[in-house]
Amino acid sequence: MKSPIDSRARFVEATAELLRRQGYHATGLKQIVARSGAPRGSLYFHFPGGKEQLAEAALEHSGQQMHAELLALVDAASSLGEAIVAVAAALADRLEASEFLDGCPVATVALEAAARSPALQRACSASYARWQDLIEQRLPRWGVAPERAHAVANLVLCTLEGALLLSRAHADTAPLRSAAQQLAAALDGARA
Amino acid sequence: MKSPIDSRARFVEATAELLRRQGYHATGLKQIVARSGAPRGSLYFHFPGGKEQLAEAALEHSGQQMHAELLALVDAASSLGEAIVAVAAALADRLEASEFLDGCPVATVALEAAARSPALQRACSASYARWQDLIEQRLPRWGVAPERAHAVANLVLCTLEGALLLSRAHADTAPLRSAAQQLAAALDGARA
Repeated sequence: MKSPIDSRARFVEATAELLRRQGYHATGLKQIVARSGAPRGSLYFHFPGGKEQLAEAALEHSGQQMHAELLALVDAASSLGEAIVAVAAALADRLEASEFLDGCPVATVALEAAARSPALQRACSASYARWQDLIEQRLPRWGVAPERAHAVANLVLCTLEGALLLSRAHADTAPLRSAAQQLAAALDGARA
Repeated sequence: MKSPIDSRARFVEATAELLRRQGYHATGLKQIVARSGAPRGSLYFHFPGGKEQLAEAALEHSGQQMHAELLALVDAASSLGEAIVAVAAALADRLEASEFLDGCPVATVALEAAARSPALQRACSASYARWQDLIEQRLPRWGVAPERAHAVANLVLCTLEGALLLSRAHADTAPLRSAAQQLAAALDGARA
């Protein structure tokens, strides 16, 4: 017999995948239950707030997962430009492997629902802030002045998010790979 | 009596507004008819393909409208940095005036539906390509080498799109205004 902890994690993972691939409005509780393989009856036990509460948990889960992936890529890089290009390459590879379904796990919900659900807006905002903090903290070691780190980290995150969006829209990873190369060169040039 | 042309335009405008504010899946035909004020019976006369065909027309309409706005802002700017900051300021003002509902008119549908509907994917892709072409064509006069214009225009569009997304997610236009300033400075620095 599966433990309740398993069921909770399965609901969260299934929801995270569906939100990433198709967004909030296209995702129904029936589809989440079917995808999770967990017993339907336990859904409201774990998530009495229903779909919105489940989406909040899924966004937090995705945010943590992306944070861990970013951390590994950023810590392996020896310059800001190298980090930007490495993150973009990892995101582009995933986009191609999933036939352009697996983009940013937060972006679709942020655009669809954030202005209408304070809970989802906070969850999306928290993930983005966390990723940006991670970049910001690494910047001084790559020669970015501490007083510029917040703004440069914002620029890097904005560019990568927009490039992921354009790569999905064109069904082509060229925008992502090219934007990363250009931003890496521009930031190195501006610092030199 | 309203002409059929009025009804068509009203359906398209109502759909464009709903897609921009809440996306494709949250938007139903009943809501479109109610918002448009046009007679329900004429919907399938103008759009026998239903919601998907209507969304295609709405995306094209929004793409043209944004193209005209970008053209005016870009033509009034005397440098690449000035153009980037002016476009970001206009987008940020609109976001604030609409309580963070009016972001990019194409992005939400691109993320929700583009990987599942070839027609919507083409419509989103066409709008982005058109905006990027407009930027690309103006770059040589601002000192960007013609062979770099395509890649720089892609970087500018990616950054603005991602910054719009982050500003909606945080319900704060600071990411958009800051990213534009930073990109303007980085591109000027790299070219100098």
